[in-house]
Amino acid sequence: MTIPTALRAEIDAAKQRVAALHAELPRWELVVWTAGNVSERVGDYLVIKPSGVSYDDLDADAMVVCDLDGNLVEGDRSPSSDTAAHAYVYRHMDHVGGVVHTHSTYAAAWAARGEEIPCVLTMMADEFGGPIPVGPFAIIGDDSIGRGIVETLDAHRSPAVLMRNHGPFTIGRDAKAAVKAAVLLEEVARAVHISRQLGEPTPIPQEAIDSLYHRYQNVYGQH
Amino acid sequence: MTIPTALRAEIDAAKQRVAALHAELPRWELVVWTAGNVSERVGDYLVIKPSGVSYDDLDADAMVVCDLDGNLVEGDRSPSSDTAAHAYVYRHMDHVGGVVHTHSTYAAAWAARGEEIPCVLTMMADEFGGPIPVGPFAIIGDDSIGRGIVETLDAHRSPAVLMRNHGPFTIGRDAKAAVKAAVLLEEVARAVHISRQLGEPTPIPQEAIDSLYHRYQNVYGQH
Amino acid sequence: MTIPTALRAEIDAAKQRVAALHAELPRWELVVWTAGNVSERVGDYLVIKPSGVSYDDLDADAMVVCDLDGNLVEGDRSPSSDTAAHAYVYRHMDHVGGVVHTHSTYAAAWAARGEEIPCVLTMMADEFGGPIPVGPFAIIGDDSIGRGIVETLDAHRSPAVLMRNHGPFTIGRDAKAAVKAAVLLEEVARAVHISRQLGEPTPIPQEAIDSLYHRYQNVYGQH
Amino acid sequence: MTIPTALRAEIDAAKQRVAALHAELPRWELVVWTAGNVSERVGDYLVIKPSGVSYDDLDADAMVVCDLDGNLVEGDRSPSSDTAAHAYVYRHMDHVGGVVHTHSTYAAAWAARGEEIPCVLTMMADEFGGPIPVGPFAIIGDDSIGRGIVETLDAHRSPAVLMRNHGPFTIGRDAKAAVKAAVLLEEVARAVHISRQLGEPTPIPQEAIDSLYHRYQNVYGQH
Repeated sequence: MTIPTALRAEIDAAKQRVAALHAELPRWELVVWTAGNVSERVGDYLVIKPSGVSYDDLDADAMVVCDLDGNLVEGDRSPSSDTAAHAYVYRHMDHVGGVVHTHSTYAAAWAARGEEIPCVLTMMADEFGGPIPVGPFAIIGDDSIGRGIVETLDAHRSPAVLMRNHGPFTIGRDAKAAVKAAVLLEEVARAVHISRQLGEPTPIPQEAIDSLYHRYQNVYGQH
Repeated sequence: MTIPTALRAEIDAAKQRVAALHAELPRWELVVWTAGNVSERVGDYLVIKPSGVSYDDLDADAMVVCDLDGNLVEGDRSPSSDTAAHAYVYRHMDHVGGVVHTHSTYAAAWAARGEEIPCVLTMMADEFGGPIPVGPFAIIGDDSIGRGIVETLDAHRSPAVLMRNHGPFTIGRDAKAAVKAAVLLEEVARAVHISRQLGEPTPIPQEAIDSLYHRYQNVYGQH
Repeated sequence: MTIPTALRAEIDAAKQRVAALHAELPRWELVVWTAGNVSERVGDYLVIKPSGVSYDDLDADAMVVCDLDGNLVEGDRSPSSDTAAHAYVYRHMDHVGGVVHTHSTYAAAWAARGEEIPCVLTMMADEFGGPIPVGPFAIIGDDSIGRGIVETLDAHRSPAVLMRNHGPFTIGRDAKAAVKAAVLLEEVARAVHISRQLGEPTPIPQEAIDSLYHRYQNVYGQH
Repeated sequence: MTIPTALRAEIDAAKQRVAALHAELPRWELVVWTAGNVSERVGDYLVIKPSGVSYDDLDADAMVVCDLDGNLVEGDRSPSSDTAAHAYVYRHMDHVGGVVHTHSTYAAAWAARGEEIPCVLTMMADEFGGPIPVGPFAIIGDDSIGRGIVETLDAHRSPAVLMRNHGPFTIGRDAKAAVKAAVLLEEVARAVHISRQLGEPTPIPQEAIDSLYHRYQNVYGQH
């Protein structure tokens, strides 16, 4: 199988973007060693990082391309061992163009208790539109991680899910949006954790959450 | 509306300062992604960062200028979505020349509980002159955030307020002083939080707080 | 005693590797000041850092070579004061080619309570295959630290041990693998600590731990 | 008053050292903004940083020289506002050649509760020889801070004292040794705090503390 010529330029541009976005994971301290991965969908393909490679060595040429069943199509190295989960998400969520997986510390801490993160900060209402939900315990090797992500996210506004005893997956319209969600997730996981260490944070009324979410999704940023 | 020629040089210098001060926010880990903003008043205008732009791209040319009702006067991009709150502060607090907003983690954690930070460190007495107060819950879209900031700060010595379920705003005679307050706020929010995790910190007597505050505001630094 | 000519090139290559791996310790915030050390075995020798030297000055030429009784064979400076413990491990564990010692903060915190880290994250099952065990309290000066490390690790899958009131030692087939274990250890020590601050993390069933460990040790990465 | 010609070279060398050592304070995250200071004694003088100056601007030429009553002898700017405390220490502790003051976060957290840090890590026994003691509450303006430091340190092995509601001061035979003590202090303040969050750390027997302290003070490092 080879990549159609019509997609060549788009694939190469995605490799550049995905490589640059991988650098955001250590920058925001979401990963250690070679953990974590970012992918982006291009047509019926996805661009993702290879397995077990240092963040120092992740330039555009190092990226690999798989089809949406997770089979390697282009690249010298094995794709990330989480590729099957990314591919499952793309097959089942048409609006998703980017997926990120990390083991970021505070998100992993909530995931280890299997506890959702309550929506008690306006920044969280903006980006996540409510609590960050928990997905099932599932181990690598079949579609159970991908299915757990999709079933949980389908039932929530949040672009982030805490997979139980494992860590977060985030989605977005493209890889950059999914990375942004991963960065903000860890920040709210940390702030809400710290807040709860000395008492119960005040909930935000649902009406205010709805209003903040609507504005942020539709008005914020450059247009 | 255009900027009066007489203010041109001052506006340009403020853009340089405000751009450089934005770099202090990620340096001291007060912000993630594009969150947070610094502004400075120049005459009847304010210089602030554009909305939703990466800290890597915030040079002086990227800064935008608004009038004190928050209307864009100069710049290619939309101003920060918090511009209305900054503008409200400048309209109602004559002595304020700089405003900073962040979601810094420990300050946000106190804000989510709606709990003021008690004055238990000399560094806090120096800079804040007492506890860091909590402002009301208010959401973006009208003047309620600005009004909450001004009403709370008018009633306290502190140049910092924790807006409930949101995060801190700080003020100063110029943007640099407001950034300094934002940096020291997060540090005392962290140190006092950590102290309280294992018991109650000892209060500082009011007389000592007054003495420290007076000295620091009048004697400290280079004159 | 001098190094056999046949080993010259291998020793020099190991010095390069060990020097570069020392830079990973401050990079991942596992050490302060001059604390911590990495060694690698080459034949009947080990390459290790000198004692009490700044991480800024640890290039390949600064590395020292000892025999497996810990005697200095090559180098201008005294070897790390933990050399005897490294040497003991090499003498008693044939499959070990690299050893790392740090006082990384969260691992040291578990070690000060003498409490093993429970296996509640898939990342921990992957790398450690179960809980991180605690070794005995032993002080420097004879073989008691080395013996404590070997006896504890012989009884567990984990390549990491928390020496009581002291800090972690990790092992690997080479120095890089031992550094990786040290980095992942601190990350799981931190995440599990944080998780437990607000409740009990859910245990992972033993069967799932076994399955994850087997896959990760045999399938993960580039082959 | 001018500096004797015989001391010129020594003073200039100390300025270089003290400037370089100031860079260690932000490197190890012991200070924010312009907080913190390092001094070194040269004859009847001390070299220290000026008050309220950014760490970015602290080269050797920026350093100022005071006599041991804290009067400015050389330099364009006011000396650190903590100079009187440094000077008091030099006047009353002949063996001290360097003093460091920070508000490092975890040390400040213990200081705010007025609680000494128990000796539960071998690294702490090595460097501090026992618990880190608490000094009295004292405010700036007379000799009460300096006296509090000296009286507390005279009664302990520890080169570090936690001044109540304030922060740590550390001493050493030279400025580098005092900086090392400040770095290790914050690390043990953090690790012991974290350890105690989930239970009581095991004490180290006094005999083992004595043995570790003796070895470290007399044998460790390069000789």
